[in-house]
Amino acid sequence: MRSIEQQARLGVHIDLAVEAHALLRGDRDVEIPGVAETVEKTDFAHISTIKILDENGARSLGRPIGTYITVEVPEIHEDCVLIEKTAALLAEKLRPLLPAEDGRPILLVGLGNEAAVPDALGPQVIRKSMATRHFFVQMPDQVEEGFRNVTLVAPNVLGNTGLESFEVVKGIKEEVNPSCIVIIDSLAAASIKRVGTSFQLADTGITPGSGIGNHRLALDEATLGVPVIAMGVPTVVHAETIINEALALLKDSWTLDKKKEGAAGHIVPEESARIIDHILEKENSGYTVTPKNIDTITADLAKTIAIGTNLARLHAASIWTTMASTSTSNT
Amino acid sequence: MRSIEQQARLGVHIDLAVEAHALLRGDRDVEIPGVAETVEKTDFAHISTIKILDENGARSLGRPIGTYITVEVPEIHEDCVLIEKTAALLAEKLRPLLPAEDGRPILLVGLGNEAAVPDALGPQVIRKSMATRHFFVQMPDQVEEGFRNVTLVAPNVLGNTGLESFEVVKGIKEEVNPSCIVIIDSLAAASIKRVGTSFQLADTGITPGSGIGNHRLALDEATLGVPVIAMGVPTVVHAETIINEALALLKDSWTLDKKKEGAAGHIVPEESARIIDHILEKENSGYTVTPKNIDTITADLAKTIAIGTNLARLHAASIWTTMASTSTSNT
Amino acid sequence: MRSIEQQARLGVHIDLAVEAHALLRGDRDVEIPGVAETVEKTDFAHISTIKILDENGARSLGRPIGTYITVEVPEIHEDCVLIEKTAALLAEKLRPLLPAEDGRPILLVGLGNEAAVPDALGPQVIRKSMATRHFFVQMPDQVEEGFRNVTLVAPNVLGNTGLESFEVVKGIKEEVNPSCIVIIDSLAAASIKRVGTSFQLADTGITPGSGIGNHRLALDEATLGVPVIAMGVPTVVHAETIINEALALLKDSWTLDKKKEGAAGHIVPEESARIIDHILEKENSGYTVTPKNIDTITADLAKTIAIGTNLARLHAASIWTTMASTSTSNT
Amino acid sequence: MRSIEQQARLGVHIDLAVEAHALLRGDRDVEIPGVAETVEKTDFAHISTIKILDENGARSLGRPIGTYITVEVPEIHEDCVLIEKTAALLAEKLRPLLPAEDGRPILLVGLGNEAAVPDALGPQVIRKSMATRHFFVQMPDQVEEGFRNVTLVAPNVLGNTGLESFEVVKGIKEEVNPSCIVIIDSLAAASIKRVGTSFQLADTGITPGSGIGNHRLALDEATLGVPVIAMGVPTVVHAETIINEALALLKDSWTLDKKKEGAAGHIVPEESARIIDHILEKENSGYTVTPKNIDTITADLAKTIAIGTNLARLHAASIWTTMASTSTSNT
Repeated sequence: MRSIEQQARLGVHIDLAVEAHALLRGDRDVEIPGVAETVEKTDFAHISTIKILDENGARSLGRPIGTYITVEVPEIHEDCVLIEKTAALLAEKLRPLLPAEDGRPILLVGLGNEAAVPDALGPQVIRKSMATRHFFVQMPDQVEEGFRNVTLVAPNVLGNTGLESFEVVKGIKEEVNPSCIVIIDSLAAASIKRVGTSFQLADTGITPGSGIGNHRLALDEATLGVPVIAMGVPTVVHAETIINEALALLKDSWTLDKKKEGAAGHIVPEESARIIDHILEKENSGYTVTPKNIDTITADLAKTIAIGTNLARLHAASIWTTMASTSTSNT
Repeated sequence: MRSIEQQARLGVHIDLAVEAHALLRGDRDVEIPGVAETVEKTDFAHISTIKILDENGARSLGRPIGTYITVEVPEIHEDCVLIEKTAALLAEKLRPLLPAEDGRPILLVGLGNEAAVPDALGPQVIRKSMATRHFFVQMPDQVEEGFRNVTLVAPNVLGNTGLESFEVVKGIKEEVNPSCIVIIDSLAAASIKRVGTSFQLADTGITPGSGIGNHRLALDEATLGVPVIAMGVPTVVHAETIINEALALLKDSWTLDKKKEGAAGHIVPEESARIIDHILEKENSGYTVTPKNIDTITADLAKTIAIGTNLARLHAASIWTTMASTSTSNT
Repeated sequence: MRSIEQQARLGVHIDLAVEAHALLRGDRDVEIPGVAETVEKTDFAHISTIKILDENGARSLGRPIGTYITVEVPEIHEDCVLIEKTAALLAEKLRPLLPAEDGRPILLVGLGNEAAVPDALGPQVIRKSMATRHFFVQMPDQVEEGFRNVTLVAPNVLGNTGLESFEVVKGIKEEVNPSCIVIIDSLAAASIKRVGTSFQLADTGITPGSGIGNHRLALDEATLGVPVIAMGVPTVVHAETIINEALALLKDSWTLDKKKEGAAGHIVPEESARIIDHILEKENSGYTVTPKNIDTITADLAKTIAIGTNLARLHAASIWTTMASTSTSNT
Repeated sequence: MRSIEQQARLGVHIDLAVEAHALLRGDRDVEIPGVAETVEKTDFAHISTIKILDENGARSLGRPIGTYITVEVPEIHEDCVLIEKTAALLAEKLRPLLPAEDGRPILLVGLGNEAAVPDALGPQVIRKSMATRHFFVQMPDQVEEGFRNVTLVAPNVLGNTGLESFEVVKGIKEEVNPSCIVIIDSLAAASIKRVGTSFQLADTGITPGSGIGNHRLALDEATLGVPVIAMGVPTVVHAETIINEALALLKDSWTLDKKKEGAAGHIVPEESARIIDHILEKENSGYTVTPKNIDTITADLAKTIAIGTNLARLHAASIWTTMASTSTSNT
């Protein structure tokens, strides 16, 4: 188990509950009180469901009580068949979280800055999704059985608009009275292998300080008055996480080696902080590590989530019909 | 003066008060009761200010009581110096319409669909403008004297979001409590020479059915509770307007010719309607006429308005500083 | 049959051989010497194959000897199933025009200006297509049976680059020694119903003055030394065509009416020219008529052609695999 | 001075001659035989001119004989005044490298993939630049004194087109017979503070393996037959460079500390390689470190270079006129 200081440092940027849990449990897989994890495997995906059961668990994992489902599909990139299968799996996991149809719309929100690719996942999902509420308003008798009433919004970011995402979502929520809100956002991972491969679905909304942006006000049931489901995928690792990880790996390996044990003792948090400050000029400087093809990765993720959310909102539609509407309404 | 039927037909798409007024007055420049127009000229612009003074004038011109200023700059396209001069002129005309600084933000709204170039003027202005509200919130003591508190929103269109522009603007207005709302939108002209050259500024908000989109709910002081200023430029002429105009020109010329006077009588509204239906398959089919380079024209217009609105909100800034912030914060 | 003047005027912009042929044949369906047309119908498409057999036919139709296939699919827009079916049909028509596999690449060229949506069809097809030549060079033993060696280029337009499309294509052709060149371009139609619905495939290359751009130098076997296949779809009607059409319709209808026959005689080409000059300020001014949703129409057309050309180059691939590679490799 | 192994590792990605030189010279500023460096300072820029004089110098620095000018402007981002000043300085440095006007065009080439922001610098410069060759061809008598004949091309990347950049440039060069070629490309830095701040200008062309893409064939006078000037700015640091740097810093600091000297000895290249493999899964995996706002940084750099190259090609034009044509001809 890593030092508590290491946890603290890494903790700042751990958006995936599954990574926070693994880090806390460490190599010896200790049980964390108030937290339960179950895992499933399919032929293409590894699914982890973490339930934070009480305040103890919430404190340990640094996030609210609730359910966090992670669907990891390592080979999804540029594989159209896996994109569809993953979309169907996400739909299956999302559907039970949605409230029963009651005539009110679902508000789908894509957080982030479309101009900055790793932060563009949310807006891209919105662009690839299909709003239906106007059909319910304009031609209610022609809406096919099974379609749900959906509205879309991409609030953009504070630096561009002067508006907190919370304000935009709250304002629109008050006007359209949705039965629930589904929020899509880019996440930051602790490990590069999670980038572009791990979809997290949580029934807890979005908590402050998450993501690679700065969405400061919580977007959750407490603040918005309706259930808030959050869905995200890591698109970056913070540069300081990579450096910390490098030093932690050095320390871990030396600790196991009698001859280097002493040297391991010299790798202390202050040393890591000094090196990060030197390389990145200051901590939390906003440098991120991404794969070079993050643009095509993000496009694939947005497609997967758009198909998945469409499927989740439809009782009976085949994948194909859903894909059709998704793909033809967009570039 | 053209036939009342002709007016009725053209009237549907006349977004510029100055065109509606000219059409009503006809060749003989008759006075329209309840309407006053004054004109100014500069070395580069022709400025018309039309005041609709009472219900008579409103009925005649088919739009609300209020002031409509049109700034026409025929040579603006691709002329950087004229773009700046026009921006300064727009700022001068806009500034008196804005409420006094009272600590509340101004909400700048860009209506339209960014994906459809002639309808993208509003969103492009938003993209080129600079929000400042977060500076007032986060570092109030560092905000330079003269800067106003500005927030930005581009509500996109109903077909993409399932949300009326009105709902988005109303919702955000309730959250941020602005002192006024400034709305940017693309317009449709009656004459091709107005496309990309005539900026209209009105203190009446946006009335239903205007524009090339379908922004059905009025966005005005009555519905939003604060003053609403509208600013727009024609980016299209409707295809049916062009066909009507062709037939009207034929009739006008024949009417003046003794030998063809009889033939002129055959050009009746039903004939025009039949021809429009035949060519465009049906009236109001959504075909628009644009210059081939409408993409660069729209970009120039968006730049002009973004510089103009920035200037209007700043007491003391030089054009240069404003341009700098405008141009560097965008693609 | 319309007047020869009318033909001359319209002729300037008739990119579709099928429209030129229909106009020449007129209402009485006269035979044009040196031209043969056959038609087929499927459940979703109307296919016309016009063969210009000799110099007589070439002069009459104003285009080179060769075969012009038009596939018209009126309902293709936003219909994913029709997009695929049309792609497969285009592939079937394109395949026999391609030379036998001989190890040399096929050079796929997308003409036009990506920034101006109606002229962006060519570049968009390139963006959605998959180059394979580097696989043949880098890992020849791993290339799947049936894949053809393909290279892509979007030469952009003279006004942006200072280079004629011909120069770019010729230069690259000399470097990569392709067995044939397939050129994609936007066309202009005579009738609005052809916009976005009629795919023309010709074995004659591209002749000067076609399209909505100004691709002045011919791109054909004579100038490039290898077979050149051209594929295009109308995305606009020129504004002057619409006005001409309106006046021609008026004349046609009056000519059939004893009481208006005299009036019909007043509609002469000079009158049309005067009206066009008045409305558009001058003829050939570059005003085009497009559907408001030309952006989504163009995206659909680009997708159809990209799938079609992919299918045509593959002996055995299923539509699905081809779509997958097409769609996931792009935004 | 760092270990030769360290140099070897870092060397792979050092695109800036000034960084390679500094690394070789180390802390003690040893002289490198066959290399001369002069430095200048202005109020906003630090300019280094490195001349590689002979084969000794070329071997040491791992790049061809020639002149490498680096203009470093740490505060350029979002500062419009510095952008202009830097553009003027780049023009001043570029002008002497251009051949005398002889009627032939200059071919400006923007390498890279526009879809991947950190690799988009080249294509963005092309988009913001103004071609003039068609004016010389179409209206030679109207071209203003001092304008040079310029053509532009953005060859895109092998993975998208199946064409080597070399093939595209060579083919077009053969068609248009330019007097020289100026190539713009994104670079990778060894240090994060160089990203977006250091412009390198070299008269040696582009050598294989440079940049963040894979432009394998050299683009230089030997292969293209005319002088080739290369201009670039780092937009990324490779992830492995950051990790190496972290470990090198640890070693450097420990080496100076008697108590930790022994531990320093455990940090060996094999250890670094193992950690990089573990974190990035394998070396050279294509992970890059970028500032979060790399999109606005790249846009600023492209604007600076576009203004700079425009200025360099004009004998007499004021900055303002050049900016005007640059900024209005683009989005």
